[in-house]
Amino acid sequence: MTYGQGRTYKKVEVIGVSGAGIEDAIQQAVTRAQQSLEKLSWFEVQDIRGHIGDDGKVNEYQVVLKVAFELK
Amino acid sequence: MTYGQGRTYKKVEVIGVSGAGIEDAIQQAVTRAQQSLEKLSWFEVQDIRGHIGDDGKVNEYQVVLKVAFELK
Amino acid sequence: MTYGQGRTYKKVEVIGVSGAGIEDAIQQAVTRAQQSLEKLSWFEVQDIRGHIGDDGKVNEYQVVLKVAFELK
Amino acid sequence: MTYGQGRTYKKVEVIGVSGAGIEDAIQQAVTRAQQSLEKLSWFEVQDIRGHIGDDGKVNEYQVVLKVAFELK
Amino acid sequence: MTYGQGRTYKKVEVIGVSGAGIEDAIQQAVTRAQQSLEKLSWFEVQDIRGHIGDDGKVNEYQVVLKVAFELK
Amino acid sequence: MTYGQGRTYKKVEVIGVSGAGIEDAIQQAVTRAQQSLEKLSWFEVQDIRGHIGDDGKVNEYQVVLKVAFELK
Amino acid sequence: MTYGQGRTYKKVEVIGVSGAGIEDAIQQAVTRAQQSLEKLSWFEVQDIRGHIGDDGKVNEYQVVLKVAFELK
Amino acid sequence: MTYGQGRTYKKVEVIGVSGAGIEDAIQQAVTRAQQSLEKLSWFEVQDIRGHIGDDGKVNEYQVVLKVAFELK
Amino acid sequence: MTYGQGRTYKKVEVIGVSGAGIEDAIQQAVTRAQQSLEKLSWFEVQDIRGHIGDDGKVNEYQVVLKVAFELK
Amino acid sequence: MTYGQGRTYKKVEVIGVSGAGIEDAIQQAVTRAQQSLEKLSWFEVQDIRGHIGDDGKVNEYQVVLKVAFELK
Amino acid sequence: MTYGQGRTYKKVEVIGVSGAGIEDAIQQAVTRAQQSLEKLSWFEVQDIRGHIGDDGKVNEYQVVLKVAFELK
Amino acid sequence: MTYGQGRTYKKVEVIGVSGAGIEDAIQQAVTRAQQSLEKLSWFEVQDIRGHIGDDGKVNEYQVVLKVAFELK
Repeated sequence: MTYGQGRTYKKVEVIGVSGAGIEDAIQQAVTRAQQSLEKLSWFEVQDIRGHIGDDGKVNEYQVVLKVAFELK
Repeated sequence: MTYGQGRTYKKVEVIGVSGAGIEDAIQQAVTRAQQSLEKLSWFEVQDIRGHIGDDGKVNEYQVVLKVAFELK
Repeated sequence: MTYGQGRTYKKVEVIGVSGAGIEDAIQQAVTRAQQSLEKLSWFEVQDIRGHIGDDGKVNEYQVVLKVAFELK
Repeated sequence: MTYGQGRTYKKVEVIGVSGAGIEDAIQQAVTRAQQSLEKLSWFEVQDIRGHIGDDGKVNEYQVVLKVAFELK
Repeated sequence: MTYGQGRTYKKVEVIGVSGAGIEDAIQQAVTRAQQSLEKLSWFEVQDIRGHIGDDGKVNEYQVVLKVAFELK
Repeated sequence: MTYGQGRTYKKVEVIGVSGAGIEDAIQQAVTRAQQSLEKLSWFEVQDIRGHIGDDGKVNEYQVVLKVAFELK
Repeated sequence: MTYGQGRTYKKVEVIGVSGAGIEDAIQQAVTRAQQSLEKLSWFEVQDIRGHIGDDGKVNEYQVVLKVAFELK
Repeated sequence: MTYGQGRTYKKVEVIGVSGAGIEDAIQQAVTRAQQSLEKLSWFEVQDIRGHIGDDGKVNEYQVVLKVAFELK
Repeated sequence: MTYGQGRTYKKVEVIGVSGAGIEDAIQQAVTRAQQSLEKLSWFEVQDIRGHIGDDGKVNEYQVVLKVAFELK
Repeated sequence: MTYGQGRTYKKVEVIGVSGAGIEDAIQQAVTRAQQSLEKLSWFEVQDIRGHIGDDGKVNEYQVVLKVAFELK
Repeated sequence: MTYGQGRTYKKVEVIGVSGAGIEDAIQQAVTRAQQSLEKLSWFEVQDIRGHIGDDGKVNEYQVVLKVAFELK
Repeated sequence: MTYGQGRTYKKVEVIGVSGAGIEDAIQQAVTRAQQSLEKLSWFEVQDIRGHIGDDGKVNEYQVVLKVAFELK
C-alpha cells in the first residue's frame, strides 16, 4: 500500500455473541464475517451488551462492532 | 437458541418511505429488506424525516432504521 | 418518483482515500461503490481523517461516508 | 405550582412493548410505571425498536422512554 | 430544480403539540410554521415527548422537529 | 392552556455574553431575544464558553442557549 | 474504601428546580434525593434549562442531574 | 413470552467495580443489583473507567452499565 | 467590542448547495443568508452531504451550517 | 491578529475544582493551567460534576473544560 | 486531599496497543504515559478498536483512553 | 511496526486557521504541531468553522482536529 493512492474501504456492522468474554465475542464476529466478506482489516467496537441468566450470571456478551475491508 | 453459544448477527441500514405513517414506513422497509436479505429479527429506528407537499400536508414519512438478522 | 409511494433505500458505509483532497476522496468512494452496488443517489460525510507523511505533509485524506441507493 | 419555588423531580427509564404501534407502547409503559411509582408528569422517548416475526411483519414495538414525576 | 445549481435552504426548529398522536403533532407544527414562513419542503424529527394526565393517560404528544424551506 | 389542544412552539438559538457570570449571560440573551421575538417561555443551555483576559481572568461568559415561545 | 475491592454504585436521575441559580438548583435536588435514597456521593449535570416569567426574567433554573451512591 | 403482548421493562444505572477486569466489574454490578431489584434480563455498558495506583498499575475497573428487568 | 460587556448573538441554520465544492457551498449559504439577516460574523459546519448524478459523479455538495450574527 | 492569516491554536483538557461554585472552579482551572501553558485565550465547558459531603451539601464543583491558546 | 479545596487536573488522550487483550492495552498506555507525565490518577475509555491479521485473528487491540493527573 | 506489539500513541487537539480553504487549514495545523511535538502519524477532523468578513466573504477557515503520534 502506498499512501495517497486512491483506495476504497467498506464498513459492515456485525454483532458477535460469546459466553466467554468481550474479546471472544469480537473474535466470533470477525471470524464469521470473514467467511462471507473479503479479508477484514480492522474493527471498531460500537456497543457492549449482554444477557443475564436465571442464576444472575452474565451468560453471554454481545458486542456490536464495525468491521472494515478494502474494496479492491 | 441457547444463550452463551457463539452467534453472529449483521445490521443493515435502510430507509422506509410511506405516505401512511411512521409504522407503515417501518413495515415498508422491513418487507423490502427481507426480500434481498435473510429473515430479519429486529429493527432500531435511527431517524424520522418526511416530505411536505405543496398543500402543506406531510405527504410521506421517511424512517431511517437498522434491521438485524443472524449470519447462520 | 411520486411522493408518498412506498419505496425503500439502503445506506452503505464506505471510506474513500485520496491524496488530492476531501472532495476527491468522496468521489473516489462514490465511483468505487457504484461498481458493486446499484446506482447511488446521495452521500453523507461521517468523518474526515488523514495520514501525515514523513515530510510533515498530509499525504492522503480518508473520508468516511454513507452512500444511499434505492432498493427497486 | 408556582415558578421559582424549590421542587425536585425524578426520571425513571422504562420500555413499553406493544403489538399495536408506537403510541400504544408508550401508553403501556406509562400505565405500568404509574402503578409502582408516583403520578407521572411527562415522558421523553429515547429509542424506538421492535421485533420482526417469521412472516416478516413487525409484531411488536419496543419504545424506550423516560418518565418523570415530582418528589413531593 | 437542477442539481449543482447554487441554492440555499433554511431550517427552523418548531414543536408541534397534539392530543391525537405523533403524526398529528408533526402536521400541527408544519401547518402552523407554513403560515409565517415560506412553503416548507421537508421536516426532521428531533425529539418526541409528551404530557401525562391525572388519569395516567398520555394526553398530548410534543414533537420537536426541524422544518426546511428554500431561500429563494 | 389545556393539554391536548393543538399548539406550536418555535425555538431560536442565541448566545448571551456577560462578564458577571453564567446566570447573567443567560438573562442577557433572554432579555435581548424578547425584544425582537414573542414573549419567551423557557430556555435550554447548549454550551458554556468564555474568554480569558490578558491577566488570566475569565472576563466574559458566553452561554449558547435555545429560547422557546408559542406561535399563536 | 480500598481500591480494587468489589463495590457497586447506583445512579439516579433527578431534576432540581430553584429560582436562585444553578448551584442552588443542584443543591435542591441533592437535598431532596438524599431523603429517599442512601447518602449520596457525587452528582453529574446532564442539562440546564429554565422558565422565563411574564416580565422576561428567568424565574427558575431546572438542572437535570444524576446523583450516585454506593449500594452497600 | 409471546411477542406483541403488552409488557414493560425498567432500566437502572449501576456501576460495578472490580480489581480483576472489565467482565468481573460487570458481574459485580449485576450480582449486587439483583439483590435489591427483580431478576435481571440484560445489561448495556455505558462507560469504562478505572483507577490507577501509586505503582502505575490499573488497580480497579469501574464499569457504568444499565441493567434491565421486566415489571411484572 | 470590549470583552465582558453584555452582548447577544443569534445563530441560524442554513444549507448551502453548490456543484463546485464544499467551500463554495459554504460561501453560497453565507452570501444568501446575509441578504435577509444582519451582517454575519462566523459559521459552524454541521453536516456535509451531496447528490450523485446518473453518471456516478458528485453533482452537488450540500453543506448544513449555522451562521451567527450580533443582535444589536 | 488579521483574519485569514495562518495561525494554529492548541486545546488542552483540564478540570477545575472549587468549593465556591461553578464560575470559581472554571477560574481555578484557568489560573493553574496558565502557569504551565501559554497565555490562554478561551475556554469551553465539557462537563459539570461535584462531590457531596456527609452532611448532604455539595462540597465541591468539578468542572471539566478545554482551554485554548495560540501556538506562536 | 480535602474536598472543596482548589485543585486542578489535566486529561491527556492516549492510545494503548496490545496483542493480549483490552485490559492489557489499557495498562500499556497507562505505563507509557506515566513515564512522560505526572503520576496518573484515573483513566476513561473513549474507544475500542483493533487490527485483524491475515489469518482472520484479532492480532491487536487499540484502546483510546484519557488519563488524568493532578497539576500540583 | 509489527502488529500486536505493545505501543502507545498520544493525541493532541489543535486548530488550524487559513484563508485558503479547509485542506490548507489542516496542513497549517499539522505543520505547526510537528514543530513542537514528535513526527505526526495521522489527523482526525473534529469541527469546521470559520470567520465571515465585512464584505460577506468567508475570510478564514478554522479546522479543529486531533493529531496523533507514537510515544516511543
